[in-house]
Order: sequence, then C-alpha cells, then structure tokens
Amino acid sequence: MSLLRDMLGAIAERGRAIADLSTISQAASPLDQIIALCERLLSSRGEATGLATAAEILDRYQELDPSSHAGFQRALLERFGPDMNRLIEASRAFLDEPGPAGAELLHRVSEPRRQQLFRLLNQAADGMHHLISMRSDLLAALPDAPELAPIDHDFQHLFRSWFNRGFLELRRIDWSTPAVILERIIRYEAVHEIADWDDLRRRIDPPDRRLYAFFHPRLPDEPLIFVEVALTRATASSIQSILDPDREIITDEAASAAVFYSISDCQSGLRGISFGNFLIKQVVAELNAELPHITRFVTLSPVPHFARWLRSQASIPGIGALGAELEREEWWQDEEAAARLLQPLTSMAAWYLTHARDSQGRLLDPVARFHLRNGARLERVNWRANCSRAGMESSHGIMVNYLYELDEIERNHERFVSGQPPAVSGAVKRMANAGERLLSAASPEQAAQGGR
Amino acid sequence: MSLLRDMLGAIAERGRAIADLSTISQAASPLDQIIALCERLLSSRGEATGLATAAEILDRYQELDPSSHAGFQRALLERFGPDMNRLIEASRAFLDEPGPAGAELLHRVSEPRRQQLFRLLNQAADGMHHLISMRSDLLAALPDAPELAPIDHDFQHLFRSWFNRGFLELRRIDWSTPAVILERIIRYEAVHEIADWDDLRRRIDPPDRRLYAFFHPRLPDEPLIFVEVALTRATASSIQSILDPDREIITDEAASAAVFYSISDCQSGLRGISFGNFLIKQVVAELNAELPHITRFVTLSPVPHFARWLRSQASIPGIGALGAELEREEWWQDEEAAARLLQPLTSMAAWYLTHARDSQGRLLDPVARFHLRNGARLERVNWRANCSRAGMESSHGIMVNYLYELDEIERNHERFVSGQPPAVSGAVKRMANAGERLLSAASPEQAAQGGR
Amino acid sequence: MSLLRDMLGAIAERGRAIADLSTISQAASPLDQIIALCERLLSSRGEATGLATAAEILDRYQELDPSSHAGFQRALLERFGPDMNRLIEASRAFLDEPGPAGAELLHRVSEPRRQQLFRLLNQAADGMHHLISMRSDLLAALPDAPELAPIDHDFQHLFRSWFNRGFLELRRIDWSTPAVILERIIRYEAVHEIADWDDLRRRIDPPDRRLYAFFHPRLPDEPLIFVEVALTRATASSIQSILDPDREIITDEAASAAVFYSISDCQSGLRGISFGNFLIKQVVAELNAELPHITRFVTLSPVPHFARWLRSQASIPGIGALGAELEREEWWQDEEAAARLLQPLTSMAAWYLTHARDSQGRLLDPVARFHLRNGARLERVNWRANCSRAGMESSHGIMVNYLYELDEIERNHERFVSGQPPAVSGAVKRMANAGERLLSAASPEQAAQGGR
Amino acid sequence: MSLLRDMLGAIAERGRAIADLSTISQAASPLDQIIALCERLLSSRGEATGLATAAEILDRYQELDPSSHAGFQRALLERFGPDMNRLIEASRAFLDEPGPAGAELLHRVSEPRRQQLFRLLNQAADGMHHLISMRSDLLAALPDAPELAPIDHDFQHLFRSWFNRGFLELRRIDWSTPAVILERIIRYEAVHEIADWDDLRRRIDPPDRRLYAFFHPRLPDEPLIFVEVALTRATASSIQSILDPDREIITDEAASAAVFYSISDCQSGLRGISFGNFLIKQVVAELNAELPHITRFVTLSPVPHFARWLRSQASIPGIGALGAELEREEWWQDEEAAARLLQPLTSMAAWYLTHARDSQGRLLDPVARFHLRNGARLERVNWRANCSRAGMESSHGIMVNYLYELDEIERNHERFVSGQPPAVSGAVKRMANAGERLLSAASPEQAAQGGR
Repeated sequence: MSLLRDMLGAIAERGRAIADLSTISQAASPLDQIIALCERLLSSRGEATGLATAAEILDRYQELDPSSHAGFQRALLERFGPDMNRLIEASRAFLDEPGPAGAELLHRVSEPRRQQLFRLLNQAADGMHHLISMRSDLLAALPDAPELAPIDHDFQHLFRSWFNRGFLELRRIDWSTPAVILERIIRYEAVHEIADWDDLRRRIDPPDRRLYAFFHPRLPDEPLIFVEVALTRATASSIQSILDPDREIITDEAASAAVFYSISDCQSGLRGISFGNFLIKQVVAELNAELPHITRFVTLSPVPHFARWLRSQASIPGIGALGAELEREEWWQDEEAAARLLQPLTSMAAWYLTHARDSQGRLLDPVARFHLRNGARLERVNWRANCSRAGMESSHGIMVNYLYELDEIERNHERFVSGQPPAVSGAVKRMANAGERLLSAASPEQAAQGGR
Repeated sequence: MSLLRDMLGAIAERGRAIADLSTISQAASPLDQIIALCERLLSSRGEATGLATAAEILDRYQELDPSSHAGFQRALLERFGPDMNRLIEASRAFLDEPGPAGAELLHRVSEPRRQQLFRLLNQAADGMHHLISMRSDLLAALPDAPELAPIDHDFQHLFRSWFNRGFLELRRIDWSTPAVILERIIRYEAVHEIADWDDLRRRIDPPDRRLYAFFHPRLPDEPLIFVEVALTRATASSIQSILDPDREIITDEAASAAVFYSISDCQSGLRGISFGNFLIKQVVAELNAELPHITRFVTLSPVPHFARWLRSQASIPGIGALGAELEREEWWQDEEAAARLLQPLTSMAAWYLTHARDSQGRLLDPVARFHLRNGARLERVNWRANCSRAGMESSHGIMVNYLYELDEIERNHERFVSGQPPAVSGAVKRMANAGERLLSAASPEQAAQGGR
Repeated sequence: MSLLRDMLGAIAERGRAIADLSTISQAASPLDQIIALCERLLSSRGEATGLATAAEILDRYQELDPSSHAGFQRALLERFGPDMNRLIEASRAFLDEPGPAGAELLHRVSEPRRQQLFRLLNQAADGMHHLISMRSDLLAALPDAPELAPIDHDFQHLFRSWFNRGFLELRRIDWSTPAVILERIIRYEAVHEIADWDDLRRRIDPPDRRLYAFFHPRLPDEPLIFVEVALTRATASSIQSILDPDREIITDEAASAAVFYSISDCQSGLRGISFGNFLIKQVVAELNAELPHITRFVTLSPVPHFARWLRSQASIPGIGALGAELEREEWWQDEEAAARLLQPLTSMAAWYLTHARDSQGRLLDPVARFHLRNGARLERVNWRANCSRAGMESSHGIMVNYLYELDEIERNHERFVSGQPPAVSGAVKRMANAGERLLSAASPEQAAQGGR
Repeated sequence: MSLLRDMLGAIAERGRAIADLSTISQAASPLDQIIALCERLLSSRGEATGLATAAEILDRYQELDPSSHAGFQRALLERFGPDMNRLIEASRAFLDEPGPAGAELLHRVSEPRRQQLFRLLNQAADGMHHLISMRSDLLAALPDAPELAPIDHDFQHLFRSWFNRGFLELRRIDWSTPAVILERIIRYEAVHEIADWDDLRRRIDPPDRRLYAFFHPRLPDEPLIFVEVALTRATASSIQSILDPDREIITDEAASAAVFYSISDCQSGLRGISFGNFLIKQVVAELNAELPHITRFVTLSPVPHFARWLRSQASIPGIGALGAELEREEWWQDEEAAARLLQPLTSMAAWYLTHARDSQGRLLDPVARFHLRNGARLERVNWRANCSRAGMESSHGIMVNYLYELDEIERNHERFVSGQPPAVSGAVKRMANAGERLLSAASPEQAAQGGR
C-alpha cells in the first residue's frame, strides 16, 4: 500500500510541474480556483497531469475556509450536474422510440459530471480519505440545505460500490495491534467511552474480551466500524459488571455467551453505508468457528430515547406519577423505592421498545429498529443496567439484550421487513402486555399519541 | 482475505438452507432456473439468503452448457434492463420541468436492474472472479450480437469503479514469488511464450531481469497485467539477445537502460479496462527510485500487422518486388540479399507505423497506437530483431523501440490526443520519408488506399 | 532478515577497507593466507574489522581448491586446538586441588580455539550457510582421516546449540510457497525422486497431500528437513498408489489416515544434528489439531538393505533358492510365481527388520532403527509395494508401515533405548517367527552370521 | 512462532501424562522436588517426557519462594557441576599423554552437567524467557555469594551462543508498532523516563524522532535493548531541548545530525551479553543508508558519577570551593554565579572523563568507557544540559557528546583497547588541560588519589 502511495505521489509530483497550475488565475478567490481546477481535471487527458490536478484540488479543499464549503457544494450541484441540454435531447429521443439503446443513452447522459469528478479525485494517493471527509462536510450542511441531496446520492452511489462488502476485511484488535489503530479505537468509541490506554487494555487484552473491526484495503489504518465483545458465563445484565476493572477474568473455554456490548461507527462521512448488520453476523460466524462451545450471542444495548418518550406520556395519570418518582435523585439506590418501580418501569420499556412508532410507522427506538430488523429477538429488559449519569438520564438505567439465534436470524429478518410484529421473548411479551394495561388508563387520544 | 472468504462461505452455507432453493421449479430448464434465482436475488432482503442465492447463481452459471449463454445474455438485456414504464414517466416529468431533481430521478430510474444484480453477485466469496468470466463470455458473443452492447456498458461501468487505479497494487514478481502466481505468469505470457519453469526463471531471477504485475485486493493470486523488463547496457535491438539463455548476465549497477520487452494482459474479461498505460509509468517511477543511474526507459515492441499491410500494397511496383524477395525462405540469413533489403524494409516499416491509418483515421498498428498515445516516442526501427517463425511471418522480423522520456511523456500524450502527428526520432522520420518516396511510385488511388 | 544482511554487509564493507588485508603476505599460498586471516580474526577486537575479516575468510574458503581442504582441516586440528601448555598447567593445578573453580578453569582452557573461530565466522552475513558447507567438506574427509574427529565434535557442539529445537520453525509447503524453496524441495527429495514441477505440484497442491519442513531463522529460504504426507482412506500399502498421477483425489475430511511416505534431510553439513524424530511428532501434533478425525499416523518406508542382507544368507539352502527366484526378471508380474514367493519373502523381511543386527548389536536396517527408536511400532510388511527398478533391486519391492500411536510413542521409545525388543504388531511377529524357522535350516554358524 | 509454541505445548502436555510426575516424592520440599526433576530431565530420553519435565521445572521454579533460590543455586553449583572423578581421571590421562584427543576428552568431561540442563530447559516453549529470569536471580545473589560465579560462566557461555549477533533483528519502533511492545519500551526506558503514552508518542511518531531495538526470534515481543534518536539541525547540547513537548518539529530532510540520546538495556538477565556497541553502529549504518544527507552521528550522554567523584576531591582547595558553590540550591539559574562556574565546572568534567581511572586503570566513568572503547570521540562537554533534579545531583547538569565518525571508529577502538589515551576533540583537550592545572594545586598524594 505504502509503495503504491509513494509511486502515486512521485507521479503526481512530476505531473504537477507539467500541469502548469500557474495558468489558474491567482486573482480568483480560492473557491473559484478550486472550481477551475475541477473543470480542468474533468477535461485533462494525461495520467500524471490528472493525478497532479486531483492532488492539488484535495489539498486546496482541505485548506479552504469552512465558510466556503457552501459555495463549493453549490458548484457541485449546479455546475457539475448532467448536461441539461443533452439530457433534454436524449429524453425526447427516448420518448420517440423507447428501447434498450435509448434507455442506455439516457442513463449515460443523466450521470452528473461530479460522479466522474469524484472518481478522478479518488485516484489521488489519499483520495478516498479526502472524499469521505468531503461528504462529512456535506452531511453537516444537508439539514439546512436539503436541495443538496442529489450530491449525496452520488456520494452514496460511489461509496456503496467502493465499500462493497466483498472489499471489507475483518480484523481482531488486541494488545498486539499497532498503536496508531488503537489510538483511533479510543477516540471513536461512542457508546461507553474509553478513559485511557489502561481502560482500552482491559477491553482487548484479557482472554474473555474481544474487539473486531472492519477495514478497507485503501484505508489500512482506519477502522470503519467496530464491536466490543465480552465472553461471559451467562447473559450479562448490566454494563457495570462488564466494565468493572476488578471483575473476575475467565478463560475463553469457561465462557458460554458472547455479549456484544458496544458498536461504534468510526467515519461520519460513511453514514448510511451500512456495515453494522454484517459486522455482527460475521463476528458471530468467527466466534462460532473459533469457540464452538459458545452458543449464546447476545447484545447488551442501550435504549437511547426511552426517558424522553416516557416524559411525552406524562399526561397519562399512572405514567406521570412514575415519571415523578424517577426524577428523584439516586432513586435506584433506595431499595424500597426501587422494588416498587421495577415492574412499571420495565413494563413501560418493553412496551416502548416493541410498540412505540413514529409517524411513518417505524419503531421509535433506533437501536431496537437496527437489531430487530437485523434478525435479532428482544430477549430481556434489564434495569439498573447502566447507572452512569448518562444512562440514568437517557433511559432510567434500562438496558436490553437482543439475542442473535443463528437459526432464526433470517426468518426474523424476513418477518420484520414484511411488516410483522418484531420477535420478542415470552418474558418481554408479558412485560409489554403489562405496559399496555398501564397505558390504557389513558384517554384514546393519548393512547394514539403514545402508540404511534 | 482467506478468512473473509471462509466467513462469507459459512454465512452463505447457512443461508442456503434457509433460502429454500427447492421452491425453484425443477421442471424448468437450467437457464430458466438461473433467471428465476436472479429475480429472487434482486427481491431478497436477508443477508444470508442473498449471499446464498448469489453463490448458487454463480455455481449454476459455471455449470451451464455454453449453448445456453446466449439465452442468459438475452435475459440480461431484456428482463434486467430498466423499468421502461417508469422511465417513460420520468422522461416526461423531466421534460415538463427540467432541473437537478428531475435529472437525478431520470438517472436513477434509467439504471438497468442488471447493475444491481452484478453488485449483489459480487458480494459472493469469489464473485469478482466469476463476473470477470461472465463478461469474457459476453465479449466472445458480442461480434455476432452487437445488440448486447448495453450489457457490456454495465460491466465496464462497474469494473471501472472496482478496478479504479487506487485499488491496484504493483508487485515485483521474482523467484521468491509463490508458485501459484508464477504458474499463471507462464500461462498468460502472450508475446514471447515462456517455455517452462527454467525459461521463467531466466526472466525473473537474474539481477538484470525484472517482472512487475498489477494485482487487485479481491483477486490476490491473479495477476491482472504484467510487464517484463531487461536491464541492459544499451537499448536492445533484438529479442534474441534478450532471451538468449547463454547471454552475459550483468549487475543492475552496470545497466543504463531498462527495456520493456513484453506486456501481457491476463484477464480476457477485463478487456478495455486499461491498466497498461499506468503500469508502464509506475514501473518507470519504481525503477527510477530504486536505480537512479538508469536513465533510458525503452520498449522492444512487435509490429504485429506489418507483413499483412505490406502485402496489401503489393500492386505498387517497388513494393511488389520487395514482397517477393521477403517471401524467400530464410532470406535474412543470406547476407547479401539482406543488405539489399535493409533499407527498403525498414523504410516501409517506419512509414507504416507512423502514417498508415484505418478508415476512422486511427493509426493502423495497435501497438504503435498504444505507446504513442501513451506519450512515448518511436525511437528506432530494428530489423532481424525477431527471427522466430512467428516474428518473420507477422512482421518480416522487424521490432521497434518506443522511448519513454520522463519529461516528455505528458506533452507527447497531449499532442497525440489532440490529433497532431506522433512523436518520432529524427532517424525514424528520415526512414519514413524514404518510405514515402517508395510508395509515391504508386498511382494516386493506390497511395490513398495504402496510406490513408 | 534481509535488512540485517544488508547492514552486516555494509559494516563489513567499511571494515574491509580498514582491515587492510594487504598486509597479508601475497607471496604465501592461498591456504596460508586463509590461516593468517583466521589468526587475525581471533586476535582482532574491532567490530567492523572482525566482520570484514570473517567475510573475507569465508569468501576465500569457498574459492579454495578442494585439494587444499585437507591442509585447512589439518590447521584447524593442530593450530586452532587449545593452548597445550596452559592446559597442562591447568590440569596439574586441578589435580592438586580438585574443586569447582579448578574444573571451571580446566573447561575454559580446554576449549579449542577453533570454537571461537567458528563463532566469529558465524557473525558474517551468510556465516551459518558457509559453516554448514565447511562441515560438509569435513564429513567427506573423515572416513579417510579419522584423526580429524575432534573438529567435528566442535562443529556438532555449536550446531546443536544453534539448531536447538526451540529455534526451528515448522512450515507447511504448498503451491503458495515461493519458488526458491520449492526448487530446493525438488532437488533435495532423496527417497522418491520428484521428476519436475508437475510432479511436485501433485505432491503439495491437492487437498489430500501435505509437505512440512523445518526452517531456521538464519536460513530463511533453506529447508533443513521435510516430510511428505498423503491423507488416505486406509493405510497405504504401496508407493505406486500414492504417486500415481491418475489416482482419485479425496477431500481431507474423507481421510482417516496420514501416511508419511518420504523424509529427506536437506543439508549434508548438518548430518547427525537430528531433527527427524521431532519433525514427525510435530507434524502428527499439527495434523491432530487441524484434522481431529484423522486417527492413524503411519509411515510407508523403504527397507534399504534387505536385498543385500538376503544375498548374504544365500548359503542357507531355502534362502539360496528364494534368492534365485527373486533374481528372475519381473518375477512379480508372474502371478503364480509371485503367489509362491509371497510368504517366504515377507517372512524373511520381517525377520530381517526385527532381528538382524550389526556387530555392535544395533538393528541392521537404518530406517527400522530410526522409527523404532523413535517410538513407532512395525505394523505391516507390504510386498510389491515399490516396483520401481530401484525398489526391486534394494528390497525386492518390499516396503513397510511404521505406526505412530500417540499414546504409545514414549513407552515404545523408552523400551527400545533400554534394550528391549522393538515393538511390532501381532501379524509381523508371526511373519518373523516363520522367518526364524526358514533360517533355522541353516548351520549354527550361518545362523549366528545372519542374526548378528 | 506461536504455532511452534502451541505445538511444543501440546507435545509437552501429552508427555506430562507419561512422565508420571507423581513418582516425585510429595513429601520432599518444593526445592528438593525441583532438583529431583532436574536429575530426571538429564537422564530422560523421550522427546515428550523431556519437554514435559522441562516445562514442569520452569513452572515450579517460577512459583518457588525466593528464599529457596539460594538452595537451588547451590545445587546447580555442587550437584550439577562436572563429574569430579571422571575429570580427575581425564586430567591424569592427559598429563600422561598430552595431545588433541586427550584435550578433547578433557573438554568434554569438564563441561558442567548444568550446561546440558540449561540446554534442555531451553527447549520448553518459553524456555529462553525463563532462563533469562533464572540468571537474573543469580546475578542478584552473586555479590554476596561470589562462589556461584561458575554458574554464571555457563549462562554466559550459552547466552553468547544463542544471542550471537547473527540472530539479532533490528526493528524500528514507531507508532505502528504493536502496543504490547510499546508498553515494554515505556517500562524499560532507564535514562530519561517516559511519563506516559503521549510522552512515548512524542519520541517515536514525529518525522524527526526514531527508536530502534534489537529483537531475538525466540522472544518476538521482547525488546533486548533500544536506542532513541533525535534528528536535529545541529548537535544537541541539552536534553531539555530534545524532550520539550513544545519544540519545533522538523522534517527528516531538514536534519543534518542524528543524536543518540538514550540507550536502555531491557533484560537484566542478559547483563554482560553486550549488544549496545553493535546496536549503535547498526543504527548508524541504517540511517546512513536511508538519509545520506545526515553526516553527524553523535550521542547526548550522561556523566553518571561526576558529582560523586568531585566530592571525593573536595580536599583540594579550589575544588572544595567549587563544590560548595555547586551545593547551592538552583545555582544554575543565577546567571552571574553560573557564568563564574562555567569554566571550572566543565574543565573538571573534561578531566574526570578522560583521566580519572579506577584501581585497575580503567576510566572511572562507565558511559565514557563504553563509548570511547566503542570507537567514539569525546566531542563536547555541555553544561546546564540536564537540569532535572536527578541530572543536577549526579553530574551538576553536565552532559556530553560522543561523536561517531564513521571513518575513525575502528581506529579509535583499536587505539583504545591497546591502552592509548582516548580520542577527544581539541576543545575537550583544552578543557581537560585547564582541569589538570586546577587539580595540580593539590598535594602530590591528593593528585595521585584523584588521578587513579
């Protein structure tokens, strides 16, 4: 890889001399100069000139003041779309005589010029890295500028192709992994923060801990997504027991369950290019091959919006009272109060996870949506499972286990995508039914609001 | 890589059970069963089911009787094109209101379904390998079925993306290379056949011989294209001197020239996805970095169609006589005859290489076209340079040197693509002028036929 | 490794300049110059000078006319032994006051100077390689010059330390192995010659064939010893069935036995530094871990001196007649004759293998000695098992299976080294008894001659 | 490597069953049991039994109470020395007839049995690691039990052979190095402590910092010794400028000097098996090849015992006064006092480094001894070069530069070992002369005391 990068660099260097970048008007603004370079790249025909121009564009984009990003994005949208006149012509011709040849022409002519631009930029030494960060800038702008969506479609189209699953490489991360990668793991962990190198070591070095990541051949030091796994004697019911520095360490032979307790995406510029579903299944397959005595594959997952949703139901009498109790400082350390709250709290969580839906009919909870769509079963609702401040605030300390049962994954998945109710264990179903009864004290309107 | 392949295999295996391939009608023909599976793959939503179906399709395609290929290709064209009704609708909408959003929709709707089909097939463990061979079958059929061209456009579109230069890896092949790769080098050498392992060793093991190949991360044991290089004291003027088993071996420090004497494409299914131009330049850059005292980078190239072309000019009196002499058995070993033929033969070769063009105005000789377009200069015409039977038959023993002058490559390339005459040395220019005079004995019609 | 070698080379190069080799008298013979350099190496104190001198000695030794080897060996014996005066002194001192300190001094003073010489030579870049070949020359000379034995003791002492089992690396050799190693496998195979690369491929590429070799970190491309293994459905009883190019290939899952059909030492200069016993056991352990369903580990071994021994018994009436029949051309293709010979032939072989001993009481057959000492059991005697000319001439086509039963290896080994009879199967024991009866027709003297 | 370790483990495991360790009397003390196992190991003949016994001994030694180490060492000395009776006999025989054969026998018989014991222990999976730690225990005991020295001679003899320079592998340590190794670098740095991972990163990641270590193939994750290098514009004169987190970082092209500012041995059990001299030269050779524009190779070294020596000279009037001033808190931040002290302080340091010798005539300063013997030249004496508390206490803040001039290393080395005065620059020579004058104020006896 590094050899290739050197070569690309050397060739680009030579091309840079030839490309004669001085002909770009120095009077123009940095943004206009970049746009002029992009035009030149699309019309250039020489190998080296092309590489040099691509490298120059990426360098300059990186140095561009963020305030100019909007201008660049607008240019991508308007100047580097398809040739409208040719497209109008091709549409007419196709309508005159519909057929494969005309359709093909239409497809070719309708391809925005920025797709080719992105392809050419990708040939530069660190092109892929820079394009990911260019898309990251775009994603940040999109909420306020939805008209830029077509640019993102092109990014997605190309990234889906380049990050085709066949290119991804699963690697185990452990204490023998280069520091340059470990440092990024520390930085990217998004669910249960890694405090320092000692904390990291506790998660990757003991025989009962694993961490797996996907890599891409052109980004050899950049993890794309990773999952942390605890090998345990039984399904874990709290994150404290997993992260406790003084916990008992067991051998991998003594384990019978693999608990996926954290999944983190690493590249914001790859949002929506999904690897997560595949990562879990591949790690399951890997553990299954290496440690055949481990028969239980289960997550320990957060319930991110549960507290917010519960507050939104506060007008329902029972729920309001429950909410008030949960607001009390450290209620969960008061054993008596806790015992009283256990049943209503977990019932509401079970109902929320399996019945609360948004206006498009999708499950409200994003983590539930991910795992249930992915073929898992909601197995257990655990309380006092994440007693950190963040855990209490977002979900009153609730965490849940999703079970990946090898022989049911596909069936569950097919059922879920065809609109049937999600797969849940008997215990969770009973909890959710209890939740249903609690909510039914509400007026019909409230129930509709809560349930939809 | 192999781990990934195993995992993909394991997941596909499990999916195979679930995919319930038995629901495919066994009464249908093998071809119809494959088509049904393709439809199912496009509609399937499960990871494992998808992988299993993809693997099944590829397996079955491989076992398909070649007589059924035409049927499969027709299905790709007709059943897996875009949705014509939606496309008509989108065209009308766009013409009503032309704009980025409409253009984007048009682009999306006009994408043939087979593109997605190919992408899904590529996710199977050896998917890329199988798709290359599927295209190879298509290329064999195209001459007699030009209407299949749209399928090839889709292959090219995807392959260009997957084989983007940034993914290619340059590796030196030597006597430490795994046998599985060396064996393929022996098999794929297309210019100067490699007789056996001893012959191969003579080309990769001595300090004055190099072989470089491009690889792709998903085809780790499959060279895509390779070039053979001889490090020499001076520009080589015959292939015999390079391949002679008894030649003097020199150290790489003693060399001052690098002679590229053979370039072979390895994958017929990747025809047109050009790597060759880039390979030469990258090897030049690599040698330049490793052996800075080597200052001359030059090919020793065949002139494949020269003899055929010369025959086509036989009605010109001088040429006809020349041709008759060249038909004599082993004329080149008769020193007297050879001396007489030297001048007219090389003059005609120089003229042919730089002036003979086809009906579209392209240079007739494909090798000349490749190197001159690539930025090289036609430096020298060598006679008695390939005295093998094949060399004599195709080009009366002529071989030529194309010179890659680092500082001129880009300029030559830009000039060539803008339609100017190719770059040639002074000596070759003089030869070509002499050839011009020889040909001008011809009638105007003949001259036009031969020269233009 | 190669980096280190380059560095050692660079340092030696610089040292060479300083070492001022010109002070070595050019008038002296090449041999005397080498000896002078050895003296200088032992007295030199500089790093670079030392490396340069060592490299110079090894270069010159390699170019030395073989007729001078004897002179060099004599110098090693006489000039580079211990300091005799100091040794006499130390011996007296020790006898005056025997104790650990005196013993230690004695040990130090009695070390021949050539040990240190060899250690210093070993520091040169390819030192180990050259020392192995230096010992190879010595071994060739030893039979005619037994007084050189002390030199060989020093070689053995150092080689045992450097090739300590902990340094050896087991590698599987297959079709992905670099050609430079495969070529040596072809060259070194000593039992069943490898005809060419196709023959080699048949032995390493199919799923039911394995080849394992030991390597040493300082000789990364040089196999030390290797073993070829066939995975089969049942214990193989002939070499033809294993080497047949048209044999049925099975998957490794279908196999239940691993047949070790060839073991070859690669380095004549390492004779007596035994790896073979450990190699077999390590391969057994490796196969056992990878393919737990393979439960039978067995050799298919030659009986190298059987025919010679049988001839030596020709004066015994029955044996003489048997020998005469076996002299007939292609007797083994005459089914009737063969059927008649089967019983006496295999009986004699069984007796020979288990009872025929040399004057020191060791089993006559070296292969039997190796495997039986190593803990294997003589399991089966196969006839018509090697019908090549060589096989017929050396052992009348007999080959045998030694069985490595994991749970008995150690016990068998301990019994063998304590002088008990070798482990044999019931069938072989019965054969040997039959052989005993045949031989007992002999006169007492003859019997003694045959059996001892 | 790890495969081998697994295999050794598997074989040992099986041997453990057979070795029947239960026959070792459980009534005996742990120490006596280990000794009994050692006797058994020396007499055992089976592969697996041997490995099992070796592993058992090493396990038990590790668990042995440190108070029993002395007993074990005594047993090594007395029970596992040579066979005294045979040695007496061999000495007599040799004195009767002195000659190569007798000398060889004497050498063999005088070898202590513990050498073979150590060789057998080394065959266990982690044998080398354990033996190093066993010697470490011995070295700790030696000062109080000098009679154990013969054991250490045997360790040294074997370690010199196993750690022969030809086996050592130089690796660059950077931010891509596995964490397991980096963690050890942090732990082993003995000269300028590494505070944490950030501090480490500052020493290995920037383009102007390097760290190189020697490794041995059997200890792949254990650095043996390492050196830290700063690439700088000029010879560095203080450690602060090198370790400053806010220093300016330069490219390696901008550097013209390589400053070796820290060398640390990692394995206390390998003391005296010198790698340091060779490490520096190899790194010089490596940097020379990679960065030919770097022409100055220089250390920045401590002067560990200078302050102690200066105190020992306090009775000399001038020195006593100087010492008193240097005792003042933070004198070096008082510019006026500092200016006054500069000259006498550096003069005394220069004299100390080049003239102060111990009772055996060796230079007093161990670091000076190491580098000057190694061929370097004492180039410069820097004051206020290490203003840490430790630096002030041990050497009044003095550090020095030793220069490795490629073309003088060997000459300097040869001169040094032949007893000539060490190589010093003109400036240092002048300083030392000034020091001489200062000291000559002393009475003759004092001068003799100081200079010896």
